[in-house]
Amino acid sequence: MPDTLISVTPMPDAPSPAAAVQPLRWVGAALQVLDQRQLPHQCVYVSATSSVEVAQLIRGMAVRGAPAIGIAAAYGVALAVMGGEDMAQAFEQLQASRPTAINLHWALARMQGLHSGGADAGQLLAEAQAIHAEDAAMNQVMGRLGAQLLGDAARVLTHCNTGALATGGHGTALGVIRSAHAAGQLAAVYAGETRPWLQGSRLTAWELQQEGIAAELIADSAAASLMAAGKLDWVIVGADRIVANGDVANKIGTYALAVLAHYHKVKFMVVAPWSSVDMTLQSGADIPIEFRAADELTQLAGQPIAPAGQAAWNPVFDVTPAALIDALVTERGVVHAPTRQAMERLMRKA
Amino acid sequence: MPDTLISVTPMPDAPSPAAAVQPLRWVGAALQVLDQRQLPHQCVYVSATSSVEVAQLIRGMAVRGAPAIGIAAAYGVALAVMGGEDMAQAFEQLQASRPTAINLHWALARMQGLHSGGADAGQLLAEAQAIHAEDAAMNQVMGRLGAQLLGDAARVLTHCNTGALATGGHGTALGVIRSAHAAGQLAAVYAGETRPWLQGSRLTAWELQQEGIAAELIADSAAASLMAAGKLDWVIVGADRIVANGDVANKIGTYALAVLAHYHKVKFMVVAPWSSVDMTLQSGADIPIEFRAADELTQLAGQPIAPAGQAAWNPVFDVTPAALIDALVTERGVVHAPTRQAMERLMRKA
Repeated sequence: MPDTLISVTPMPDAPSPAAAVQPLRWVGAALQVLDQRQLPHQCVYVSATSSVEVAQLIRGMAVRGAPAIGIAAAYGVALAVMGGEDMAQAFEQLQASRPTAINLHWALARMQGLHSGGADAGQLLAEAQAIHAEDAAMNQVMGRLGAQLLGDAARVLTHCNTGALATGGHGTALGVIRSAHAAGQLAAVYAGETRPWLQGSRLTAWELQQEGIAAELIADSAAASLMAAGKLDWVIVGADRIVANGDVANKIGTYALAVLAHYHKVKFMVVAPWSSVDMTLQSGADIPIEFRAADELTQLAGQPIAPAGQAAWNPVFDVTPAALIDALVTERGVVHAPTRQAMERLMRKA
Repeated sequence: MPDTLISVTPMPDAPSPAAAVQPLRWVGAALQVLDQRQLPHQCVYVSATSSVEVAQLIRGMAVRGAPAIGIAAAYGVALAVMGGEDMAQAFEQLQASRPTAINLHWALARMQGLHSGGADAGQLLAEAQAIHAEDAAMNQVMGRLGAQLLGDAARVLTHCNTGALATGGHGTALGVIRSAHAAGQLAAVYAGETRPWLQGSRLTAWELQQEGIAAELIADSAAASLMAAGKLDWVIVGADRIVANGDVANKIGTYALAVLAHYHKVKFMVVAPWSSVDMTLQSGADIPIEFRAADELTQLAGQPIAPAGQAAWNPVFDVTPAALIDALVTERGVVHAPTRQAMERLMRKA
């Protein structure tokens, strides 16, 4: 791994409130990536100066979250031009770094359009920075739209990490929770730990602590008990890809939560920017689902937690059918009970 | 912890097939307990020579699994008499060691009856050994009854650990899988890792490896994807307590699996001895559910996996309503779609 260590900030016991979380930052002629594999234990930035390094950081999950992956890839294109790389190869490597999140393809297509049109390195960097800033701005819009749906004294559960760490800032599903918290609308926040990678425990719990939003962690499998006990009003999640009929691919466990919410009459909200929408796929069955190695389940921080040689079935995303979604929140507006027709209306709204 | 270390056997990379797993063994004048907190890394027996030590091993989860807890407590009573302990206090301490599994109360009531009738230490030890042997024999019966329901080429998922480690031998839900495997009926076996304590990864995966039964581990939250993909015929679980209307308390995550199985038309089987049945409680709402400390979710093997001070909501059992259960297998017979009437018929069958 050719990562360059930039800075290490050990986490204080009591994090300072509202510290700005910046998963990606452009410094000098390099992309600095907050290494999310090391959170919540320490804040380490690693530096990338080529598209290969950016692709490695995406594949290795130093940066994750669909919007953040797209932004990182856009910076990767700018770096490739600056380094005089073979651009066809650069686009290909970045494209291949993760299969499920569509934002990656969306950001690369936008950069490729500009590159083909003759844009120079400076213009491509400016475009990556624009993608970055636009994402943060869209999250603020989605945060407001989503919070409006929650009503007062809402009790919410989120899954995986969809906060500032996963995006250009503020967050998608976690952005709605941030906005609702700021408006005093929340009575309880629960975070699913999100096995196997523990995005909930390691990242969401950390972001919520940074913001001073009180939250309780649960085992993913305890969500059903929370619902049966009448302790939950909304499940709020992000998306890695939303297709033409409103089906949503997101972190493994999302689909289970959607079925459980439906059964318990708990509302289910998906929050994602339009850059997560892929109108070229007709249904969720067409979305490529990434499977990762067994060791994500059988080891933790390098320690074995299962007997040696144990096999695993480890899809890291699942597909939630549109019929189980009460509200789909994008920066273009809210779709209640998404359908193909509603998705097409939103597409034309551009 | 006053545990005495008896023997340490580091686990070989490839475990020898069908090695006898003995979670509890009586040696000399002591109960030896296989410390399940250290599996699958090493096989360590700790020794208990008083009821206090037995209660500590149960509370600390060196031994777990509803039937095994009952057996251990029975040995604890014999030890208390041998040690000349205050018997009222001994019964009370053992009773209080875990709240949800009813087998503990069942075994203690059986021992108390004998003790009140004037049985001596030798007779009480013989009774504990009888409870132990009967449990193993009942599991063989349940294994056969459950396997008969599966048909050919069955694809099954189990949750938590319900094998030899959790019982007097063979296992309940895992006993059905063992019997079905021996009869050549299984096409696929999946084990849920079972957060937070990882009984699936650490214990069930290990037992299945020991038996040479090929299995794949899954994140608990991936079960819904397995079902949606049409890869599952049965979910097979144990029980910590079954009440008069057929509701079942079992390891957290069981209820989620039952709802998901119902939604996907996958069959749901509960396997437990009659000693897990509590006809004094009318419904699952009456079952005391144990909550454990946040650190079971925020730490793993002593390492933090969440930010310091993170709160958690950590119920370690949940309740599955009878209406979601297709088959309840006990040594007295099988109940399809359990109801209060069916439970009462089985009770009279004693």
